[in-house]
Amino acid sequence: MDISKLGEFGLIRRLTDDIKPVNVSTVYGVGDDCAVMHYPDKEVLLTTDMLMEGVHFDLTYIDLFHLGYKSAMVNISDIFAMNGTPRQMTVSMALSKRFTVEDMEMFYKGIRAACGKWNVDIVGGDTTSSYTGLAISITCVGEADKADIVYRNGARETDLICVSGDLGAAYMGLQLLEREKSVYYQQVEEAKKKGDRNMLGQLAQFQPDFSGKEYLLQRQLKTEARGDIIHRLREANIRPTAMMDVSDGLSSELLHICSQSHVGCRIFEKNLPIDYQTAVMAEEFNMNVTTCALNGGEDYELLFTVPIGDYDKIEMLDDVRLIGHITKESLGRVLVTRDDNEFDLKAQGWNPLS
Amino acid sequence: MDISKLGEFGLIRRLTDDIKPVNVSTVYGVGDDCAVMHYPDKEVLLTTDMLMEGVHFDLTYIDLFHLGYKSAMVNISDIFAMNGTPRQMTVSMALSKRFTVEDMEMFYKGIRAACGKWNVDIVGGDTTSSYTGLAISITCVGEADKADIVYRNGARETDLICVSGDLGAAYMGLQLLEREKSVYYQQVEEAKKKGDRNMLGQLAQFQPDFSGKEYLLQRQLKTEARGDIIHRLREANIRPTAMMDVSDGLSSELLHICSQSHVGCRIFEKNLPIDYQTAVMAEEFNMNVTTCALNGGEDYELLFTVPIGDYDKIEMLDDVRLIGHITKESLGRVLVTRDDNEFDLKAQGWNPLS
Repeated sequence: MDISKLGEFGLIRRLTDDIKPVNVSTVYGVGDDCAVMHYPDKEVLLTTDMLMEGVHFDLTYIDLFHLGYKSAMVNISDIFAMNGTPRQMTVSMALSKRFTVEDMEMFYKGIRAACGKWNVDIVGGDTTSSYTGLAISITCVGEADKADIVYRNGARETDLICVSGDLGAAYMGLQLLEREKSVYYQQVEEAKKKGDRNMLGQLAQFQPDFSGKEYLLQRQLKTEARGDIIHRLREANIRPTAMMDVSDGLSSELLHICSQSHVGCRIFEKNLPIDYQTAVMAEEFNMNVTTCALNGGEDYELLFTVPIGDYDKIEMLDDVRLIGHITKESLGRVLVTRDDNEFDLKAQGWNPLS
Repeated sequence: MDISKLGEFGLIRRLTDDIKPVNVSTVYGVGDDCAVMHYPDKEVLLTTDMLMEGVHFDLTYIDLFHLGYKSAMVNISDIFAMNGTPRQMTVSMALSKRFTVEDMEMFYKGIRAACGKWNVDIVGGDTTSSYTGLAISITCVGEADKADIVYRNGARETDLICVSGDLGAAYMGLQLLEREKSVYYQQVEEAKKKGDRNMLGQLAQFQPDFSGKEYLLQRQLKTEARGDIIHRLREANIRPTAMMDVSDGLSSELLHICSQSHVGCRIFEKNLPIDYQTAVMAEEFNMNVTTCALNGGEDYELLFTVPIGDYDKIEMLDDVRLIGHITKESLGRVLVTRDDNEFDLKAQGWNPLS
């Protein structure tokens, strides 16, 4: 259905009418000039992210459900990265004329699946039009006890550096998708040049074979925020001294923690958690897998530091890897390679403005 | 300076480094995964707005300072429209390559001027790139005592309908700017066709003469949120029963209040506040000035209802006009014209998705 049939308010009603808030902190949701929330006993956390078509996502290989899911998850991830609990979300989008009501329903379905997973209430947003493409802006509100909030600036000398899950897979997934896309369009171009309508018909039905690479695609297309790690850290009675989520790449994030905490770091190549599929794919692409793990973005794993006294507790945690330790600032930010060489860590991660 | 020289984090530092929070509710601002706020005794208000180049603004006639100012003010206006006090703001923007560091400094200067006026702290945001044009998304957080919050759904039969300032001027300002722009480009086209380089040189220097129409331009380009009205209502001990800000047009907003409050309304054409310049301009454009006042958007005035017992107090307030009253829902939403005809109010205001 054409969106102009519903107009702005009709579309908003269609997308949000059956939303029922689940959090006591949500006083009033969609439908007024503002959402209203109540946080008498907690600190309020606020984060926002903007995603632009052509820059952050490519609708030739991510569908609108997964785009919605991912857009919500990357914001939820920022709340977890402060050791908080996500509670409310606003969803703004600007759409060009090529999108239908059904498209937006699919996008919202993805948003709501992510919010449902972590009990986040959709409390507002803005729905408007765009000249070209789709622009998404999401804001997430969360809560935390003051004493529980973990900033980037709390890492201290001798702290252990930990990371959840594995690294580089989301980036390899993106490389894979981009390769398939470019191969596909090459074939289409060739078929057009030859006027081969038969071939064009086949290409229209074409689905690339991603078998054996499912994990890479999942990491790129179905982003998950690591709230499970936050819960398990709490259960294990571990309070990180510094934490952030890995969105731009491990190196870049670790340098943020070092510069904001005024410390150095020493991480070990051999300890970096890398999935088997990531390693295989890197080889196929003739890329250095360590570089992918250090600089590939969008893993949305948690990078955190804990006091050295928590060593035994951390060792007991599934899916958390100890990758190094914090040092004096004067010792620099160092990567120790498998063959015991030392390199300065550089942020070569994703920079949208470079 | 080219933005790629600074990169994302360099640009953010440049724009936000000297920001000093002024509100006690701001615990931590720019620089971590989330901003942190503290609201032990108040309800938290949250609003967000997205502005897209080519849809919401045209950089041929609004400069980046005023665009920043307006982007911030329209969000601040939403907090006032709940009878709240604005406190924090996040600023997200996606920019195409044609923007320089100096451009973004100018945009931020506008944002900061608006925030400075109402003591709002910039606590975060997202800065990224866009394929085409400029996209802006702003989120504003405010506070209010629970008992003070004014929703759209509180209007009751016999309540008086009031509006601040005057209506239709921002819309006439837009018409004026668009006319001048189209005349200008026609002249350029003609000069190009004739190869008249002399004429082209003159046109490059051309400044349209807006004398006598300054107020219309100011209303379109230098949006102000009516926090002054909120303060004066408090001083006068008036608590509106329903309120919203006029962004899409008076008719559209009044219909929101009626449908959410389950009431009807009766407003009088002769009472609509219209500035002299708006009236003159409407005549020049051969437009019905009442239609402009009812359906022209972007005035950002406050539309509110008060109990009939507040009649005397409202009469005493400068810059607030009584335009009608609330009726039973079954009596409909009615405009009474100067010649005592009655018409159904229709929302013909701005709809970005129509």
